[in-house]
Amino acid sequence: MPEHLQRPSASHIERLVRMALDEDAPWGDLTTQSLVPSEAQATAHLRARETGVLCGEDLFRFAMQSFGNVAVEFTLHDGDRFAAGDTLATATGPARSILQAERVALNFTQRLSAIATQTALYVAATEGTSARIVDTRKTTPGLRILERYAVRCGGGGNHRFSLSDAVLVKDNHLAAITENGADNITEALRAMKTRLPHTTHIEVEVDRLDQIEPVLAAGIDTVLLDNFSLEDLRAGVQQIAGRALVEASGNARLDRIAAIAATGVDLISVGALTHSVRALDLGLDFAVQS
Amino acid sequence: MPEHLQRPSASHIERLVRMALDEDAPWGDLTTQSLVPSEAQATAHLRARETGVLCGEDLFRFAMQSFGNVAVEFTLHDGDRFAAGDTLATATGPARSILQAERVALNFTQRLSAIATQTALYVAATEGTSARIVDTRKTTPGLRILERYAVRCGGGGNHRFSLSDAVLVKDNHLAAITENGADNITEALRAMKTRLPHTTHIEVEVDRLDQIEPVLAAGIDTVLLDNFSLEDLRAGVQQIAGRALVEASGNARLDRIAAIAATGVDLISVGALTHSVRALDLGLDFAVQS
Amino acid sequence: MPEHLQRPSASHIERLVRMALDEDAPWGDLTTQSLVPSEAQATAHLRARETGVLCGEDLFRFAMQSFGNVAVEFTLHDGDRFAAGDTLATATGPARSILQAERVALNFTQRLSAIATQTALYVAATEGTSARIVDTRKTTPGLRILERYAVRCGGGGNHRFSLSDAVLVKDNHLAAITENGADNITEALRAMKTRLPHTTHIEVEVDRLDQIEPVLAAGIDTVLLDNFSLEDLRAGVQQIAGRALVEASGNARLDRIAAIAATGVDLISVGALTHSVRALDLGLDFAVQS
Amino acid sequence: MPEHLQRPSASHIERLVRMALDEDAPWGDLTTQSLVPSEAQATAHLRARETGVLCGEDLFRFAMQSFGNVAVEFTLHDGDRFAAGDTLATATGPARSILQAERVALNFTQRLSAIATQTALYVAATEGTSARIVDTRKTTPGLRILERYAVRCGGGGNHRFSLSDAVLVKDNHLAAITENGADNITEALRAMKTRLPHTTHIEVEVDRLDQIEPVLAAGIDTVLLDNFSLEDLRAGVQQIAGRALVEASGNARLDRIAAIAATGVDLISVGALTHSVRALDLGLDFAVQS
Amino acid sequence: MPEHLQRPSASHIERLVRMALDEDAPWGDLTTQSLVPSEAQATAHLRARETGVLCGEDLFRFAMQSFGNVAVEFTLHDGDRFAAGDTLATATGPARSILQAERVALNFTQRLSAIATQTALYVAATEGTSARIVDTRKTTPGLRILERYAVRCGGGGNHRFSLSDAVLVKDNHLAAITENGADNITEALRAMKTRLPHTTHIEVEVDRLDQIEPVLAAGIDTVLLDNFSLEDLRAGVQQIAGRALVEASGNARLDRIAAIAATGVDLISVGALTHSVRALDLGLDFAVQS
Amino acid sequence: MPEHLQRPSASHIERLVRMALDEDAPWGDLTTQSLVPSEAQATAHLRARETGVLCGEDLFRFAMQSFGNVAVEFTLHDGDRFAAGDTLATATGPARSILQAERVALNFTQRLSAIATQTALYVAATEGTSARIVDTRKTTPGLRILERYAVRCGGGGNHRFSLSDAVLVKDNHLAAITENGADNITEALRAMKTRLPHTTHIEVEVDRLDQIEPVLAAGIDTVLLDNFSLEDLRAGVQQIAGRALVEASGNARLDRIAAIAATGVDLISVGALTHSVRALDLGLDFAVQS
Repeated sequence: MPEHLQRPSASHIERLVRMALDEDAPWGDLTTQSLVPSEAQATAHLRARETGVLCGEDLFRFAMQSFGNVAVEFTLHDGDRFAAGDTLATATGPARSILQAERVALNFTQRLSAIATQTALYVAATEGTSARIVDTRKTTPGLRILERYAVRCGGGGNHRFSLSDAVLVKDNHLAAITENGADNITEALRAMKTRLPHTTHIEVEVDRLDQIEPVLAAGIDTVLLDNFSLEDLRAGVQQIAGRALVEASGNARLDRIAAIAATGVDLISVGALTHSVRALDLGLDFAVQS
Repeated sequence: MPEHLQRPSASHIERLVRMALDEDAPWGDLTTQSLVPSEAQATAHLRARETGVLCGEDLFRFAMQSFGNVAVEFTLHDGDRFAAGDTLATATGPARSILQAERVALNFTQRLSAIATQTALYVAATEGTSARIVDTRKTTPGLRILERYAVRCGGGGNHRFSLSDAVLVKDNHLAAITENGADNITEALRAMKTRLPHTTHIEVEVDRLDQIEPVLAAGIDTVLLDNFSLEDLRAGVQQIAGRALVEASGNARLDRIAAIAATGVDLISVGALTHSVRALDLGLDFAVQS
Repeated sequence: MPEHLQRPSASHIERLVRMALDEDAPWGDLTTQSLVPSEAQATAHLRARETGVLCGEDLFRFAMQSFGNVAVEFTLHDGDRFAAGDTLATATGPARSILQAERVALNFTQRLSAIATQTALYVAATEGTSARIVDTRKTTPGLRILERYAVRCGGGGNHRFSLSDAVLVKDNHLAAITENGADNITEALRAMKTRLPHTTHIEVEVDRLDQIEPVLAAGIDTVLLDNFSLEDLRAGVQQIAGRALVEASGNARLDRIAAIAATGVDLISVGALTHSVRALDLGLDFAVQS
Repeated sequence: MPEHLQRPSASHIERLVRMALDEDAPWGDLTTQSLVPSEAQATAHLRARETGVLCGEDLFRFAMQSFGNVAVEFTLHDGDRFAAGDTLATATGPARSILQAERVALNFTQRLSAIATQTALYVAATEGTSARIVDTRKTTPGLRILERYAVRCGGGGNHRFSLSDAVLVKDNHLAAITENGADNITEALRAMKTRLPHTTHIEVEVDRLDQIEPVLAAGIDTVLLDNFSLEDLRAGVQQIAGRALVEASGNARLDRIAAIAATGVDLISVGALTHSVRALDLGLDFAVQS
Repeated sequence: MPEHLQRPSASHIERLVRMALDEDAPWGDLTTQSLVPSEAQATAHLRARETGVLCGEDLFRFAMQSFGNVAVEFTLHDGDRFAAGDTLATATGPARSILQAERVALNFTQRLSAIATQTALYVAATEGTSARIVDTRKTTPGLRILERYAVRCGGGGNHRFSLSDAVLVKDNHLAAITENGADNITEALRAMKTRLPHTTHIEVEVDRLDQIEPVLAAGIDTVLLDNFSLEDLRAGVQQIAGRALVEASGNARLDRIAAIAATGVDLISVGALTHSVRALDLGLDFAVQS
Repeated sequence: MPEHLQRPSASHIERLVRMALDEDAPWGDLTTQSLVPSEAQATAHLRARETGVLCGEDLFRFAMQSFGNVAVEFTLHDGDRFAAGDTLATATGPARSILQAERVALNFTQRLSAIATQTALYVAATEGTSARIVDTRKTTPGLRILERYAVRCGGGGNHRFSLSDAVLVKDNHLAAITENGADNITEALRAMKTRLPHTTHIEVEVDRLDQIEPVLAAGIDTVLLDNFSLEDLRAGVQQIAGRALVEASGNARLDRIAAIAATGVDLISVGALTHSVRALDLGLDFAVQS
């Protein structure tokens, strides 16, 4: 596990798992409680059915321990890679407790591990370049903290967390102020800066190369080159020449990511890391003990 | 829009959108508030960039109207099909209000429309058969009500909502009771029935054809044939012969769904409808007015 | 205690007890804190002052332990019968903690034990018949999970939990669709079935014997005979003849319940189990130790 | 309606009704949504099937208006008396909205009207005396504000709201301090007074006539005579002679209440007003419009 | 620590500290998590940089223990006095845990200790008189329970907690009823009393000496002399002559408090105790261990 | 009112006012409801009793409108200056509604206007310099969004909102890593940067001039000179020479702020803006109408 992974807080995990368990069993588990004796004990193994990167350890553990005295041992940890067939964790305790938590524990772990795994593929494709793969705000409502953590587990970085912690001026913002008489974009951005805390990072999206200079003239921190061709990305990087960080976005498919990274951009943001996720195939193999 | 689509309640939608907006801007939108004048007005169009089935109308509207006086008109409605290029809705009002809500409105609508669209493909593949495509409990934590609604918008049906409203005895449950001395599965299921409300539907999963008779002998409602070959599915349907509903699950890929449906099963449950979703490409085209 | 009693979850009990304690002492217990020294220890006995069936063990314990280090020992358990004078439990610990929790602990236990006790009387009156006493949705707002549990502690069964987990078509529903041009009730019910999950149990209320056949023709699961005379109940049971379960409701007073059960109905629902409850006389006999 | 009835706040009513509706239909009303067309309109009358005192107007209205555009007109108001057969209110609007709210609206109104009705009987029995009927803390968890309001609708008064707003020293408290070396009850009460806000009313329970003087010597506000015979109540009133208010509690059955009131006590507290309630028979007569 | 200090409940403290920690780090502490190794241990001392009275022990401890295994030892306790340079507490554990909690722990402790310290100054100034310093409802929204506790730690008393637990008729109330035709204040107050629980303490504010008799004639509990000169305060006390408690309010500056107390009033309420607070200078001296 | 003041969201204001009203009247306003007739109408003026800067308009309005039909007109707006005697707003409506909201409305407005007023004094003292007055995280728990807004109303700027949106490395952090073997501060800061989002602003606190170069060598954004003499501040500014922003903190009393600003620092952070606030003297002058 990376040393500085910045795990979600225990209280955040607790809140989300409780919410999910309440959603999944608002008034108890009819099947388990009417069929499985309360004294039955069980051991269950969390097994990988495909290769991937683990994320969700704390959520799996908290879910499993929500209904009683279940011991959970992880053999791998968040950020670790695994192969199909690997046993990731073992839960031992009352059969009822494990059965009631199974689906929620898997729903979290399969989704987060899928994000970590997908991120790791993008990161691997940029190896040897200085480009960093980062996430976007295209996350699942309610799960942003978890999904950003999964991106970190996969070796990616995070972009701003929300609208409240950094500025990203997009085409729609520029259109809005232009229409309202702001004919000088440099002046508008300079005025904006005076209204912001000094700790606010300012990033501005441009769609064409000729938009770069007016933006840089305002003294901003990062330029976002949106939907640029590879050639234009290279030209943009050269033009900016270290005066600001350079982020590329748009059309960032896995098969194109190495080429984008090779243009010299500092950051590539990939919405698909979180908005298009195929659940990783993890299963709970359940064995009842005598 | 289908007549009996059973929309999520207004209070549920309100709660989720508020949660998402709070997550996306815990203390305001720095960009919009420092750059865009409060008096700027705008019109924005929700446009489809690929074909699909709409879902998320109420969420999009509620998000857009959360920051002030925005009028939202939908030209299509939940459950309607659209093509790339179609305008789905138009929002008119303060530019700030629309910009602050944009990402949350899209995050919901893109995900739900993706589920509806994916479901519609599965449903289309079973046309002419009596098989119904249904969802599973493999939904995103916190969004189950919405995602089940999206499945209905796509023409699919819903399985049980949670562990609390129907019984589904799976292999792990049977293992648990067998290990605890229940050598007669028929008796165990009969005993279970006496402990349940009379309104509880009972479904039991079997892995092999020879497990069917002992299960039917207990008088259950649905048999779930899990990971059966097409041949075995046909044999199972014949053997059950109307004594219970028949559900197929496992390996239900889109390219195999027609063949499964042709075996005569009543239901096919597909986890991928909700656990593996690629966000549908919808965009907000923003135009500021003079 | 019955083996499969399906207790409310610990988190549900915790939430309700906390809510009740907050309601009962929003900013502390003036009497105890100003009069009783913090170091005073006490032992208190929960004693029955009339016969009954216990329900509320977990609530009593959780309340007692909310203000500090109180040990609670139950000599009887939920579902057990007791006589006037029996000691049900003993709490030992700081006098302040016990005194602050006393009223809330009793309010829950007296109400739930009353429901269990009342249910047991109805269940006893049907002994020797195949009729099962079940509850209704006429429960105290906020306490449905607890009150349904109390019914089970008294030997009764539960009806559907809510509007979301089973269908019960009542006279008002039928009136509504008739007025809207649905002149064929069988067709209307069949159409309804296509819109529901396959796991949804369907029950239909009828007021007269001649309404039974059209309802059965739709293939429903339970017929509810509402406010039928004993004679008509018998006729109804004969007519239905196993094609559906038969529930009786209305006018189900304790002195009439044996006669209703003798008509051969499968279920008798009794609103009074939960909507008309006289608190059971339980008291906390408090002894301060030297 | 009495002029100064002090209704529960709108936000409190909203919170409780929402909670109850969520409990009663966590993911929608299967019956109504699958059977009743969304365009069907209806009129429903809230009718009394026995005499009583109304309480619950705001709750009934808020519940009915929770699912859409329902107009609710009350012909009587909280605190008004009605006879069997009286129409109390009429709701007009979408049939679905009314059907989904019916049970929750009735659960509140039947319980609260029962408390108001029961209270009115006790109050009537004390007419001509100066004794006031008051409630206790033996209320349903979560509903105290409502139930106290119902007592006021029935003409009764309220005792302290909670442990936080007045002192009531009971036998257990006195036992606790005695055991801890406080051999002088007068001194203990005087010391207690120095630790309390000057706005705190102090009431002390006594079990015997000889306990009255030491308690009065401490300068307290109300003496509670618990489980006194009628003779002793009279003696107590004479002895106290206006030096404090006098409350009677214990064994306050309706058939005994006039005699208790005639002893000259100022207050009679009756736990049964709220802890033992038979739901009043109110029904919703539903008529669908063409 | 005074014997009967009535601490806020653990659940209240937990709720407030969690809220504050969430506000201060909604998605983690970027500095600590990216810079300080997770294995680093630390010891930190809470030190006073000026003299004062301690309040906030439980809040400081709960905050410090929110992120892991931190041991907190207090050498002084709530209500104790300290001098500049004194060490009040020591926290030992993971450096990350202590650093993340530091600001929240200090924000609570500095504010509450400031209130306690300020109160102690007022109390000291009244020594030798029978006047008691009490707080008002001019508290920080959300923190009333804590701030009232801080007043008690400083040796002051509490006034009513809220609008719900005692009556205080102020000039605006009297104006309102006078304008509505109530020309006899005594009658209006008497009528009011019949509508209140017998446990409600009644206090009435007067602005002039001639208002005292009509108010006393209604049999109220406390007279509030608002903004009276010292001479008029003395006259008021003499006139009331023990028929009610006497409270002074208005212009209660520290340099005038002894003179007010010397007039013979029972209570002096001071809004500045809570509405005008200069944070006490407490610091966390942090030492990392090898 | 400044054009880009970034008001707290309506839902945030609503949530805080509701919380405060619930705290101030958990079960109604005894005084108003028992004394003031429900039909009484009133007009009340919010008046300044000293000069200041307004903040709290939305909170005052929302509180006043929480209990019914009260019209609120502000003659001044957030950020506007006023003199003693000025009328700031007028509320007209039911006397009961205004009386119940008065204290909460004033508690918010007096505190926030005090912060705005105090900030304006600091800002005025720095006029003619390029130094900006900014707040800190020393805010009242639960009120940070409001208090930061009040600082902006007074013309000040905001520092980072929380631990989650910018890095501020303080002496304790540096001590922690030094003790753990990080003998090269430049390297430690560079390593930290690789673990942070590119949008994270990095500020580092130094206590001595010789610490500046190692910190700048890591390429950070702001240097915080803590507790520097005026002479050292000047030296620091010269040494940094535009390579980073310069913030001064510590000992920032109002009488010293002009001198600090004159040293050439970019920012001066002042904890006292929010941690030491004397409530501004605003009153509600209440007039009942005939």
